[in-house]
Amino acid sequence: MKKLPEIRIACPDWVTDVIDLDQLYSSDEARMRVAIACARENVLRGTGGPFGAAIFNAGTGALVAVGVNLVVPLNNSSLHAEIVAFMMAQASLGTYTLQRDGLPPHELFTSCEPCAMCLGAVLWSGVSRVVWSATREDADSISFDEGPVFAASYEYLRARGIAFVGGVLRDEGRAVLRLYDERGGPIYNA
Amino acid sequence: MKKLPEIRIACPDWVTDVIDLDQLYSSDEARMRVAIACARENVLRGTGGPFGAAIFNAGTGALVAVGVNLVVPLNNSSLHAEIVAFMMAQASLGTYTLQRDGLPPHELFTSCEPCAMCLGAVLWSGVSRVVWSATREDADSISFDEGPVFAASYEYLRARGIAFVGGVLRDEGRAVLRLYDERGGPIYNA
Repeated sequence: MKKLPEIRIACPDWVTDVIDLDQLYSSDEARMRVAIACARENVLRGTGGPFGAAIFNAGTGALVAVGVNLVVPLNNSSLHAEIVAFMMAQASLGTYTLQRDGLPPHELFTSCEPCAMCLGAVLWSGVSRVVWSATREDADSISFDEGPVFAASYEYLRARGIAFVGGVLRDEGRAVLRLYDERGGPIYNA
Repeated sequence: MKKLPEIRIACPDWVTDVIDLDQLYSSDEARMRVAIACARENVLRGTGGPFGAAIFNAGTGALVAVGVNLVVPLNNSSLHAEIVAFMMAQASLGTYTLQRDGLPPHELFTSCEPCAMCLGAVLWSGVSRVVWSATREDADSISFDEGPVFAASYEYLRARGIAFVGGVLRDEGRAVLRLYDERGGPIYNA
């Protein structure tokens, strides 16, 4: 008789060695360095794809959760860094939306522009601002497809109160993608 | 010191009572009835939102995995039925893509047209055909937003070899949405 598996998702153990979860991160650059450090270490330690993300309390800069790409090690095509970060943040706060009454505004920082899946997930997550480093073109340049995202996609989300900023520390985000490419990391679903 | 949680995702225990995981489902209608039964039971048993999905071996009709919406019970906005079904199917087969060499084509059946997140996830999942019952308009009619999905989104995915069929057993799929609405189920992120 066939059975359905239980799925278990955890960030690699190195995350708490590399990232100070208890620090306050005040600037966009400081917040982006957390996301990029997650991406870079994920490549260097061989624990997944070249993508990292982090969720912050927008006002205080408290780091709520991080995520790294776990697609290949966990055999799970949905575990992009942003999705993992949303899951960790929501589990930590005990809510299915970061816009729940009584919660402060939250922001997603991600080392690369979100793909179509993650951009959809942004809408359901409850974050009010999304900031990325490397762009869709940078991901394309190492043959990662970003899926069906259009100018109208961003318009749709902006109309629902979500702000977007791209290209923060772009050189550093792009460098992680190149590092992964140079090391011959798998480009799944190219 | 802050810690990152471990996420655990399992389908409710009733699934194996209601769905025969070992049967072969030969027609589109037989396959869709599995997805709709998951959606309906999820409402009746109060274990999540009014959405169900199933993944089949396209040729044999073997049922590989099912998924139900678990957003509210698991505090996780990404756990739409389709995402859960992809995770279960990939974990069962030990692959991050259902298009891996040596695997037969797979199809996603879902009780309602996929939202923007799930449509993006379709591309990464490796399924080659997506069939839904209730439409975006049916979801809208009980105030569920489907996110930024456009005609161009489907064109993008069709160009990558994915086929789409909507409205199969639409009355039955829509009836589950109405049932949920009548019972006053939460419309999260409306």
